[in-house]
Amino acid sequence: MSEKKIPTKMYLDESELPRAWYNINAVVKHDPALNPKTLKPCTLEDYSKVFCTELSKQELNVTDEYIPIPEEVQEFYKMIRPSPLTRAYCLEKVLDTPAEIYYKFEGNNTSGSHKLNSAVAQAYYAKQEGLTSLTTETGAGQWGTALSMACAYYGIDVTVFMVKCSAEQKPFRKAVIETYGGKVIPSPSMTTEVGKSILEKYPETGGSLGCAVSEAIERANETPNCKYVLGSVLDYVILHQTIIGLETKAVLEKFNIEPDILISCMGGGSNFGGFIAPFIKDKKEGKKNYRIIGVEPASCPTLTRGKYVYDFGDTGKTTPLLKMYTLGSGFMPAPNHSGGLRFHGMNPIVSKLYHDGYIEATTVKQTEVFDAAVTFAKSEGILPAPESSHSIRVAIDEALKCKKTGEKKKIVFCLTGTGYFDLKAYTAFNEGKMTDYVPTDEDLAKGFATIPDIPQNK
Amino acid sequence: MSEKKIPTKMYLDESELPRAWYNINAVVKHDPALNPKTLKPCTLEDYSKVFCTELSKQELNVTDEYIPIPEEVQEFYKMIRPSPLTRAYCLEKVLDTPAEIYYKFEGNNTSGSHKLNSAVAQAYYAKQEGLTSLTTETGAGQWGTALSMACAYYGIDVTVFMVKCSAEQKPFRKAVIETYGGKVIPSPSMTTEVGKSILEKYPETGGSLGCAVSEAIERANETPNCKYVLGSVLDYVILHQTIIGLETKAVLEKFNIEPDILISCMGGGSNFGGFIAPFIKDKKEGKKNYRIIGVEPASCPTLTRGKYVYDFGDTGKTTPLLKMYTLGSGFMPAPNHSGGLRFHGMNPIVSKLYHDGYIEATTVKQTEVFDAAVTFAKSEGILPAPESSHSIRVAIDEALKCKKTGEKKKIVFCLTGTGYFDLKAYTAFNEGKMTDYVPTDEDLAKGFATIPDIPQNK
Repeated sequence: MSEKKIPTKMYLDESELPRAWYNINAVVKHDPALNPKTLKPCTLEDYSKVFCTELSKQELNVTDEYIPIPEEVQEFYKMIRPSPLTRAYCLEKVLDTPAEIYYKFEGNNTSGSHKLNSAVAQAYYAKQEGLTSLTTETGAGQWGTALSMACAYYGIDVTVFMVKCSAEQKPFRKAVIETYGGKVIPSPSMTTEVGKSILEKYPETGGSLGCAVSEAIERANETPNCKYVLGSVLDYVILHQTIIGLETKAVLEKFNIEPDILISCMGGGSNFGGFIAPFIKDKKEGKKNYRIIGVEPASCPTLTRGKYVYDFGDTGKTTPLLKMYTLGSGFMPAPNHSGGLRFHGMNPIVSKLYHDGYIEATTVKQTEVFDAAVTFAKSEGILPAPESSHSIRVAIDEALKCKKTGEKKKIVFCLTGTGYFDLKAYTAFNEGKMTDYVPTDEDLAKGFATIPDIPQNK
Repeated sequence: MSEKKIPTKMYLDESELPRAWYNINAVVKHDPALNPKTLKPCTLEDYSKVFCTELSKQELNVTDEYIPIPEEVQEFYKMIRPSPLTRAYCLEKVLDTPAEIYYKFEGNNTSGSHKLNSAVAQAYYAKQEGLTSLTTETGAGQWGTALSMACAYYGIDVTVFMVKCSAEQKPFRKAVIETYGGKVIPSPSMTTEVGKSILEKYPETGGSLGCAVSEAIERANETPNCKYVLGSVLDYVILHQTIIGLETKAVLEKFNIEPDILISCMGGGSNFGGFIAPFIKDKKEGKKNYRIIGVEPASCPTLTRGKYVYDFGDTGKTTPLLKMYTLGSGFMPAPNHSGGLRFHGMNPIVSKLYHDGYIEATTVKQTEVFDAAVTFAKSEGILPAPESSHSIRVAIDEALKCKKTGEKKKIVFCLTGTGYFDLKAYTAFNEGKMTDYVPTDEDLAKGFATIPDIPQNK
């Protein structure tokens, strides 16, 4: 027992909670988003047409390293935060590894994930701006749930375009969103022009985040006093998610833990960016030398096999052009079970960090991911989300390497959420019916062909 | 802000966690359980035929006020405990009440409820005794999930007889239990003699906890190196669940909160008993005068309309006879959505406390319960289990009384779990299709007719 000086669960006190988000754009500069019509950097006016003004300002802020969290958002955070940092003693024992494994668990709220961190901020700013409704897209359903929770709290209507194959895999997600008063439309749908045109081209498609974004933007544009909000990809979302990294850094310091490896999964980049942002400056300045690993599904290998160019964030090509790693906005990912990771692009900050060599990226296959998920569930008592299990897979692999070398590395990963609405996927895995999919170079070439042919991409 | 001296979430430090359970049987004596054949008090030998020896000893222990928690169980507890005590600032604001509302949240684990507290203890003792498999029943599915998690942790097989209407309402519960390696059989089933005979009598029955208990006991008796375990009703289960009350009492003291009202829902009595047990002595000795309220569904009004007599714990009449409030082991509760509260009897300690006037009991109707659940979900960010929402209903009602009187009462309730697997019920409520059921006196008379006609009941 004397070895166990580190508690299993570690919390910050309420008085230690961060009161400002961390704006990594003040430290790492990436190429600006472009207005697709003018090919000039997006202005506040450009952004404000689609997004709330305050969020647009945050998107463009490259000067303030810290941005205060509004008092009202802090009050909400206190209901769901701090999230615990857990030492995975039981998993370590099962793996018989000398490594120390830690996870920051963001799933202890009804949205089942970290998504609520940004949802509540976005709903707050929408309310402040006097909006009466919002639209959004959702992949796995976690963002849609989070936003409907936040909108219920602030008394705002919300319409959620949910990627069709996720909606079918997770019927009860719809029920949760509806309990919170949100409206769910499986995407692509016949309720928008862009949805109709996608369905005409691909009548059998299970949908994608890219399609759902296009539909949600179209609906917002048509609706009075309504704007579109987004749960990932944009810098302001990462800004809000830095609450994860700030808490993680603070609690690691509180308990004198020096991490060797930081790991998280990557879809649009929001949890990953938010988790690692507060650690980048020290690494950039050579004060710390931890490895930072992003994990993506082999079926949607944006960083590891994509191109670093300007591309649209949606299939309908209506968003600003973002300089990012992308598989092309026309890339249609296979319907794997990690709906939250099925996005063709990657947030520009995360892309830039990868391009500059500050972070690594790796891919894992779905069946390997679920194998890790079940090991984790049985030892740590939490049934993880498929998305989060990508991080578990890599954390376990790194811990098993330590077993071979005898190294006592400290591995910290972000456990983004729970798998309570992913039981069809678990059943497929339990019954041995889950398959893996890795796109061929030809598959990727089709996606790359949809990347815009503009001077900046030459 | 100056008013908010009490944090939203309150935790004990790991070093402050209880190291012994609280055995209320050393303080409040109830009539002993009887062997149904001899009508003599059950002996250790009687119990040990069905239950693990160590658990049987705990059941019979009426001398030790504290019983140490095994080190290995404490290690597991550290993964899921302490559970937070939350000040419901946002709910208070929505209700516009001067009352202070607090809840102890037991749902932050994959079983989704407090059930894991006892499951891990029971699986541990089974392992120690060298058993290789266990059987059990489950109503809402929370106990079955909890036991399968605990058994996965200790490497023991488990078969779960799940009340049929719950199994149908909650298809994904089965998937979670199977992911943890458990086997699920909807009850009544054709796999046992008692199941066959119940199905012959009531072919359309949705099942009940009483039926499922009988089936699980029969299966355990037939299986080598296997015993039956129970998630509620027995005193040893309450013993394990006192971890809830001990933590609650300690954290209230830590933050100088003097409760006026303690509330929890009642099915078999395990969470209720565990939550309130550590508070009873002070009340009994006149040191404290808090009100303690148990909440039961109007459809299964065990304390409020039942009889205080000796009765069987199962429909098949195979368990020891327990002196308790009961509706008769033949009472077939209507299939309401709170599967965990559909039990004809009530733990003997809780029954005795009610009989002696130390606690109150009240009933609430299903639609009122879901109305409170949605209010809570929207303000506090947690979608509660239907069972737990019984407590929320009464907490809200008490807070609204304070609104009228201007009293600043401190209301503390146990939020036993989450409703993530109860979405069919929420959908029924959202769509206005949920109905209420209150048994007539004739309905109750049919149940009472099944109470055993023995000298002790004269």
